[in-house]
Amino acid sequence: LESELNEDPNVQGLALDLPESLYSSKVLNAVKPEKDVDGLSDVNLGRLVRGDAYDCLVPPTVCAVMELLEDLGGKNVLLVGASGTVGAALQCMLQREGATTLSCRWKAPELQTKLNHADVVIVGSTKPDDVPVSWIKPGTTIISCSRDLVSGKRQRWIQSQQYRKWDLRCLKLQLLSPVPSDIEISRAQSPKAVDVLAKEIGLLTDEVEIYGQTKAKVRLSLLERLKDQPDGKYVLVAGITPTPLGEGKSTVTIGLVQALTAHLNINSFACLRQPSQGPTFGVKGGAAGGGYAQVIPMEEFNLHLTGDIHAITAANNLLAAAIDARILHENTQSDKALYNRLVPVVNGVRGFSAIQLARLRRLGISKTDPGTLTEEEINKFARLDIDPSTITWQRVVDTNDRFLRKITVGQANTEKGFVRQAQFDIAVASEIMAILALTTSLQDMKERLGKMVVANDKKGEPITAEDLGVTGALAVLMKDAIKPTLMQTLEGTPVFVHAGPFANIAHGNSSVLADKIALKLVGEKGFVVTEAGFGADIGMEKFFNIKCRASGLVPSVVVLVATVRALKMHGGGPNVTAGAPLKKEYTEENLQLVADGCCNLQKQIQITQLFGVPVVVALNVFKTDSPAEIDLVCKIAKQSGAFDAVPCNHWSAGGRGAVKLAQAVERAANQKNNFKYLYSLELPIVEKIRIIAQKVYGAQDIELSPTAQSQVDRYTRQGFGNLPICMAKTHLSLSHQPERKGVPTGFILPISDVRASIGAGFIYPLVGTMSTMPGLPTRPCFYDIDLDPITEQVKGLF
Amino acid sequence: LESELNEDPNVQGLALDLPESLYSSKVLNAVKPEKDVDGLSDVNLGRLVRGDAYDCLVPPTVCAVMELLEDLGGKNVLLVGASGTVGAALQCMLQREGATTLSCRWKAPELQTKLNHADVVIVGSTKPDDVPVSWIKPGTTIISCSRDLVSGKRQRWIQSQQYRKWDLRCLKLQLLSPVPSDIEISRAQSPKAVDVLAKEIGLLTDEVEIYGQTKAKVRLSLLERLKDQPDGKYVLVAGITPTPLGEGKSTVTIGLVQALTAHLNINSFACLRQPSQGPTFGVKGGAAGGGYAQVIPMEEFNLHLTGDIHAITAANNLLAAAIDARILHENTQSDKALYNRLVPVVNGVRGFSAIQLARLRRLGISKTDPGTLTEEEINKFARLDIDPSTITWQRVVDTNDRFLRKITVGQANTEKGFVRQAQFDIAVASEIMAILALTTSLQDMKERLGKMVVANDKKGEPITAEDLGVTGALAVLMKDAIKPTLMQTLEGTPVFVHAGPFANIAHGNSSVLADKIALKLVGEKGFVVTEAGFGADIGMEKFFNIKCRASGLVPSVVVLVATVRALKMHGGGPNVTAGAPLKKEYTEENLQLVADGCCNLQKQIQITQLFGVPVVVALNVFKTDSPAEIDLVCKIAKQSGAFDAVPCNHWSAGGRGAVKLAQAVERAANQKNNFKYLYSLELPIVEKIRIIAQKVYGAQDIELSPTAQSQVDRYTRQGFGNLPICMAKTHLSLSHQPERKGVPTGFILPISDVRASIGAGFIYPLVGTMSTMPGLPTRPCFYDIDLDPITEQVKGLF
Repeated sequence: LESELNEDPNVQGLALDLPESLYSSKVLNAVKPEKDVDGLSDVNLGRLVRGDAYDCLVPPTVCAVMELLEDLGGKNVLLVGASGTVGAALQCMLQREGATTLSCRWKAPELQTKLNHADVVIVGSTKPDDVPVSWIKPGTTIISCSRDLVSGKRQRWIQSQQYRKWDLRCLKLQLLSPVPSDIEISRAQSPKAVDVLAKEIGLLTDEVEIYGQTKAKVRLSLLERLKDQPDGKYVLVAGITPTPLGEGKSTVTIGLVQALTAHLNINSFACLRQPSQGPTFGVKGGAAGGGYAQVIPMEEFNLHLTGDIHAITAANNLLAAAIDARILHENTQSDKALYNRLVPVVNGVRGFSAIQLARLRRLGISKTDPGTLTEEEINKFARLDIDPSTITWQRVVDTNDRFLRKITVGQANTEKGFVRQAQFDIAVASEIMAILALTTSLQDMKERLGKMVVANDKKGEPITAEDLGVTGALAVLMKDAIKPTLMQTLEGTPVFVHAGPFANIAHGNSSVLADKIALKLVGEKGFVVTEAGFGADIGMEKFFNIKCRASGLVPSVVVLVATVRALKMHGGGPNVTAGAPLKKEYTEENLQLVADGCCNLQKQIQITQLFGVPVVVALNVFKTDSPAEIDLVCKIAKQSGAFDAVPCNHWSAGGRGAVKLAQAVERAANQKNNFKYLYSLELPIVEKIRIIAQKVYGAQDIELSPTAQSQVDRYTRQGFGNLPICMAKTHLSLSHQPERKGVPTGFILPISDVRASIGAGFIYPLVGTMSTMPGLPTRPCFYDIDLDPITEQVKGLF
Repeated sequence: LESELNEDPNVQGLALDLPESLYSSKVLNAVKPEKDVDGLSDVNLGRLVRGDAYDCLVPPTVCAVMELLEDLGGKNVLLVGASGTVGAALQCMLQREGATTLSCRWKAPELQTKLNHADVVIVGSTKPDDVPVSWIKPGTTIISCSRDLVSGKRQRWIQSQQYRKWDLRCLKLQLLSPVPSDIEISRAQSPKAVDVLAKEIGLLTDEVEIYGQTKAKVRLSLLERLKDQPDGKYVLVAGITPTPLGEGKSTVTIGLVQALTAHLNINSFACLRQPSQGPTFGVKGGAAGGGYAQVIPMEEFNLHLTGDIHAITAANNLLAAAIDARILHENTQSDKALYNRLVPVVNGVRGFSAIQLARLRRLGISKTDPGTLTEEEINKFARLDIDPSTITWQRVVDTNDRFLRKITVGQANTEKGFVRQAQFDIAVASEIMAILALTTSLQDMKERLGKMVVANDKKGEPITAEDLGVTGALAVLMKDAIKPTLMQTLEGTPVFVHAGPFANIAHGNSSVLADKIALKLVGEKGFVVTEAGFGADIGMEKFFNIKCRASGLVPSVVVLVATVRALKMHGGGPNVTAGAPLKKEYTEENLQLVADGCCNLQKQIQITQLFGVPVVVALNVFKTDSPAEIDLVCKIAKQSGAFDAVPCNHWSAGGRGAVKLAQAVERAANQKNNFKYLYSLELPIVEKIRIIAQKVYGAQDIELSPTAQSQVDRYTRQGFGNLPICMAKTHLSLSHQPERKGVPTGFILPISDVRASIGAGFIYPLVGTMSTMPGLPTRPCFYDIDLDPITEQVKGLF
């Protein structure tokens, strides 16, 4: 019967949304033919309620039935093998819904007649031998907790499940004035249980992995289930050139989704980067938004989250350890000893591992028996011959540890003098983080991890993680990190937190996978809002040319964030010192400074237009901004080609303060969209760099150092010439000189070096030196951080 | 009413087991007086079923009610304000249970009368103004989902909840022969959902934090709830002196609980260490037991688990970064500049943070206004004056990275020449791991973290984490790691995985908190089985003298694990080479070698008897062991004073193979127990070391190097003289010479250095050099590890 039922196209099978691990052995036994199952035996649904697994098995059943009945109202429902207390409860509830209910044991003689009259059959257990498929009339809905009976159907049902408008319970804000600290606001709000949120946005139970009360990972299988569903609109939040005064891109991102979903009743998702713990304990504090536009609980967001950065650290450092250990072992062993250790006899058998066979194939050796390799082949296979001076793979920690910026490793006697100079980077600067952000599947991630180039051999050929035999282990370490983490805003709307690559030497955008999943979950009319680090000239340019190329996704709207204060600084306002009171230029009306500073806004609007995407300017309002200043910025923005320009107050008012922005974004998303990349990948590396420098930064030209030129030549020769470009340039100016605010012109952009992240898939030219390891100041912010041992509450994160 | 109800000792309040985060705003609103709530409004329980939060709110309600009714059968039940679909369903179910049910709206005139007749009142929502407490007769049980009404009572109910025998569904094993690989066995078994397991062993919903399908953290609040419940029996698994052939302490630990719970129906818990990821990818493979005695899923056990080791790494390295950064800042700033930065003006106000005030108090400065400190006080406060040559705090990674054994840090120009030699240890060697294993509460952990000594100042006084201002941040980073992780064995019995300190320089035992929680959960007749690393002379000695002292727990039985093969090596059998076939001495009967080797077993039994605890020898049987060999070992063991000696076969047969061991352990646990520590803490450090060396190791005496002696003097002077001793000695021999098998005698134990983990609370003398960073071999086991990108299955872990 099982196979018949599963293959009969007339039978509509519905399985309940229970992960397999929730089935008890009794339920599994219940679908095996040798068991005698009837309404009174101890394996029917009623018994299970009182038995061993009721609290996971039955409540979803009851709820799912009730939910289904809304769609199936007034049907004839037959309960088969569902007696006992819950069988009766089900019957009672079904009757209240207006369904006609019958109940029957599996062996009862009247089963065939009853089945014939039923529109819906609810089976508490199955006894396949007794039920010929012909007894079930075409079009009957079967609700079962027996997976074997309907497993084929379940697949079909899941695939065909269509998008529904969310029935989301938003959380109310109790706005206080003056606005309390971020952690006080976060703590004052009780987040919804994350499994409730997951259900509200259409996730199935087995697509969600709960991590505590407020975080969950979402499985990638959803992309397969919803692959035929159209994507929602894709919104990028970018900014003007940053100043020490801050612009608030994250708060705009969060405020915008709070406005869309909690106030305009439009499905929306924010996709954010996971912050590094370095700055959390260093100088910056949290990164979960601020004021009444935050992700909650903010301490979870800012601490370990679901461990993705730790997984990256572990994978990164395993590879680093493998490089140095391999050099040591190669340098201290003969070819034969090395080969015997690499391909040992285990229980009398000697064989290559899969990853070793792959290396043999790359070397053009088609042998599979370790005993048959020639001495030359053994040498080729066993020696990577890494040139230590070319190692580009660095160790990482997720701590601001300045003393690790330049170190010497290998000084213990056990390392036999193979010392070398090395460094630690902050964990988010790892290429593995850039890969996590750009990958599109587990298979793709594994391939990218294998392709990472860590050094050259002594002949100048690239050495990869795959050559070191570590691809599989890296993928195993990253298998959970690839799943985006679901959290919520202060108003209870959904947020994905996933990946946070360093925005200097990498692309600085959150993950492609989170965006893709969110675009399916919001549905065609919904919005996914994500953020690009730094100014639009850096973050947005990389978002379009690198991230959108990796994902194939087309952005609908760019939201460009500006503040009156930051524009005043671009207009020539005085420098700002941390701790000192703000100068009066920033706290009193000064229309001239604003007007002068708008050149930067104008330039960033023009950069956006290079990509053919409509731009909405979001002016993040401070209480010292005068109405005339606000009007002036909006007027200039619109004159400069913005689709609209809107002041917003989400920091003090939550989503309600960003409703006008949300409306403008919605209108802009319906504009004609001519999205295009800035350059073709086929162009030579130098040409691609020049296009970015001239068209985006406004440089007159570029100038490569000899090192940079030789690296370009090397990468081109190694076959990496047609990767996109990821500029490593200061974010504090459109030029390479941080002190040049506004819109600098006439400069020659110096390229001091060129490096590559082959696994992530980009070339990164260095414009000056980029620090990849922050430091702790004299008074790190950990002085204010504390844990109340009684309430378990975190204090002092902001 | 709320306070009246909560304070009236005659009213027995029962709240449902729902975490607060599951309450919807509507439920919370429902208990506010200004809302008009009646049976037909939209805030009663019935409405909520169909409304926004039904699937978390109602199923526990229904189930909880049904469970409660078993105890309350035949009572008069009044449903107040619980109408709608679920109200009716409840009524229907209650009737089936034989309860007389009434239902009533809150405002109904008959409420008082009905309340007077009810034994049990189920309230779907509350309208406190309408219900004077006098209406509720003494002894009435109230079941409510409104937390405010009964929050006081809830506390009382939770505290009084008594232990019940577990109703545990065990998983069946399908034993195969030959025994497949560990990961194949692990993967062939479907674990129960961890929330089901948690419920089965008596955990309340809000005491559990789910991490995916198979792992959960357990909150420490349980210790308060069950504090009046007697502990179960406490069993320690220890071993003979290890050999390269392995003994199988972990498999015995797991096999024993599988036997106790799945075969003898006795509540039991295994408490295990979390393995380091270093060996997982290096040489050793997994550590989740083996064969049919394993923790599943073994890949989760061996990988990130719930992130505890990553949290330790983060905390450890934040402290390390703080030390070097502080030295740099002190060396490059005047007292005034330093002070101004440490105590900055923020928004016009200047104040000390809490941790700075604490430092002032330690310095004997009672001022609280930063402006009033004298120059001398500023100097004392702002300068820690760390002597870099005395730094004992090392950075850690959870990777076998041998090139970090000795490094030079601070070589970048930004660190202005303050280079120094340092090292990385493997993460589990961090003192924070030792603290995690010994702590008894969040408060205690925070205090221990603050007390950690990281260096001396230039006057020789200890500098602590608290002096660096980082205690709170460390506690915040460790706030989730302090909760033990719940997993399960292959047979579905519960396991805690928590902490795994390095067994050389620390005590090598899993956590006190996991043991304490497990001892409450198993109940008075149940068993908690935990493990001591290495041989009994090291692991068990530290377990008794350090861990039991920290916990105050008294062990009931020691299980001493031996194998015929390992005993043969102690009897003079030939050396074993990895990869090479075993010599015939180990695969053929050789009674003489066995008899000779039993000297080691005998000595370890005698060591156990020093502590007054009965010992059962578990002989872990291999298929090559002859019946005569097995009998001989058991005979000698019993002659040597073991309470019993039992061969066991859990590796090939699961719990069934350890039933005889379990029965012997149960009998032994009923023996008279004379547990005592080996030495008094009041003795001088040197005397304590001598007692361990002579009584446990069998040394003739000890000999301290001048360095060791000066360290002893320093610690004694600093007030750390009465800490317990944690010997850092090779585990491969009872002596300090690894090659001396059997029972060496007449040796003088050389103490080369003495160090201290003040936060963890022990002094550790070094007997020779201890490597705290393993290395990767030529062919690390990651060559075999892979991830199937389609099934997401991990391959090659063993």
